[in-house]
Amino acid sequence: MAEAEAPVGRPAPHRVPRRVVSGMRPTGRMHLGHYQGAIKSWIELARIAECFFFSADWHAFTTDYKDPSKIAEAQREMFIDWIAAGLDPQRCTLFVQSHVKQHAELFLLLGMVAPIGWLERVPTYKEQQEQLREKHLELARELGRRFNHLYGSTGKPVLIEPHPYLTEVPKILGLDGRKMSKSYGNAVELGEDPEQARKRIMVAVTDPARKRRHDPGHPEVCPIYHLHRAYSPPETVDLVDRECRSAGIGCVDCKKMLLLNLLPVLEKHRAARQELERAPGRVEELVRLGTEKARAMAEETMVKVRAAMKLE
Amino acid sequence: MAEAEAPVGRPAPHRVPRRVVSGMRPTGRMHLGHYQGAIKSWIELARIAECFFFSADWHAFTTDYKDPSKIAEAQREMFIDWIAAGLDPQRCTLFVQSHVKQHAELFLLLGMVAPIGWLERVPTYKEQQEQLREKHLELARELGRRFNHLYGSTGKPVLIEPHPYLTEVPKILGLDGRKMSKSYGNAVELGEDPEQARKRIMVAVTDPARKRRHDPGHPEVCPIYHLHRAYSPPETVDLVDRECRSAGIGCVDCKKMLLLNLLPVLEKHRAARQELERAPGRVEELVRLGTEKARAMAEETMVKVRAAMKLE
Repeated sequence: MAEAEAPVGRPAPHRVPRRVVSGMRPTGRMHLGHYQGAIKSWIELARIAECFFFSADWHAFTTDYKDPSKIAEAQREMFIDWIAAGLDPQRCTLFVQSHVKQHAELFLLLGMVAPIGWLERVPTYKEQQEQLREKHLELARELGRRFNHLYGSTGKPVLIEPHPYLTEVPKILGLDGRKMSKSYGNAVELGEDPEQARKRIMVAVTDPARKRRHDPGHPEVCPIYHLHRAYSPPETVDLVDRECRSAGIGCVDCKKMLLLNLLPVLEKHRAARQELERAPGRVEELVRLGTEKARAMAEETMVKVRAAMKLE
Repeated sequence: MAEAEAPVGRPAPHRVPRRVVSGMRPTGRMHLGHYQGAIKSWIELARIAECFFFSADWHAFTTDYKDPSKIAEAQREMFIDWIAAGLDPQRCTLFVQSHVKQHAELFLLLGMVAPIGWLERVPTYKEQQEQLREKHLELARELGRRFNHLYGSTGKPVLIEPHPYLTEVPKILGLDGRKMSKSYGNAVELGEDPEQARKRIMVAVTDPARKRRHDPGHPEVCPIYHLHRAYSPPETVDLVDRECRSAGIGCVDCKKMLLLNLLPVLEKHRAARQELERAPGRVEELVRLGTEKARAMAEETMVKVRAAMKLE
């Protein structure tokens, strides 16, 4: 039930989840923000829990409904980047949301038992994404509870209540200092050509207050510093923090130190992508098998749901 | 798409529909109000158009969600009454809504492209049923148009816009003068024991202003007169109308004249029901076959819908 994207920026809970479901809209090639904000956690979770990660192609229609012609290709690029970034398809199930139609049936059934007032509490599209995520999960939890209360005759819950799994993730800014986002053109793609990434990073915005070499800097507002925190070893992060504030190093040197750590990651990702591209149909086959598995498990749940609702 | 029950009390349009889809919530045994308000029109429509009539078991959850244990039996009784009343399962397709899951998928997809404002226009449950029906169909039409506008690239519509088919039906009052409804206990069931129906009709309310035999009556407020209009030949209706207003006949005689016409209808229905009951599983098999056919046709539509939305 929990189809919210992995929430970010929160302390990690103690409890290890048993089953994880998360997804992203198929927006195409992934960037460093996607990796740090979600994929990295998914890779770790896939090692310790039963994980399902999906392309939310149905959700894509809530925003990009006017031109669906790019969804298929964007989805393929996204899956390739997930795997190239280290998500092991043998350790988790990758699937396409719209190919597991049991979700549509459950959506309809839960809609039937949801009091109108509950739906009105979900914020409109215009409100913050962050808020949307939390509210959606809250609604899913309450719908699950209500369903179990109404139809779970034996005391054993039919639907398992989803819980958020919150992890601490580094903040990633785009090369212009705003939030990293493909639509701003300020993103570094995971599969970006390292030479191109180098050039773009060398001209990227740093602390706007540091106009000259001997001005002291403020790392907390600098996108380069945030990338250091995600990609450089702790001693480099400490050094950069100290030497920036004291104007001991300039932005050019700081960027070069970042590139030493970041470019090999991009290079490795690029090689993994090329490896996947060399086996045509391999990713499609992995997703097809994952979707079949997800469908079978969703059907198991729906058998219980229909039985509880006497819809057999 | 048009899942509204047949609207009533409107002038018939000139156009004969090509395909008809209508349904009812599975409320159990049908009464005279159901017959006059819907089943009678369905029987006629099944002779001239491709018809699909369904048990709206999903819809049942919007009101009777707390105890679904009676839905299966209520649905069976309803299908039996439809057929016993003259609906020919060879001339139309009977199906169970929840077993054609393509509807859930289309519901989800149309929900994705529906602007929030449109949904807010649909009246709440508290408002009149009549209004609900019209608004739901209006919403279905606008959703269909919007879908075709967004995704119907070739100019040929993917979804056919549904039109209401409105027929003139006689008003049927319950035996206490209110609207005939099972929940009021004032309904005459189609399969009711004729002797029991006779007794209940003989003590039924008539014109409350006609306290004594020689008081003139007002047929327009009398449930017996409304039943005459539905079940007696025109000359009897005229006679009853005239003789009631002039106090020429009393209510007892008027009721006896009605029974002469109504009881054979109940008797015939009862026999048809018994005939169906004697072949165990026959109705279930008819509905199973109908549901398979409806599912195949719904899947044909969904193949077009998914292709238009590039969800293949």
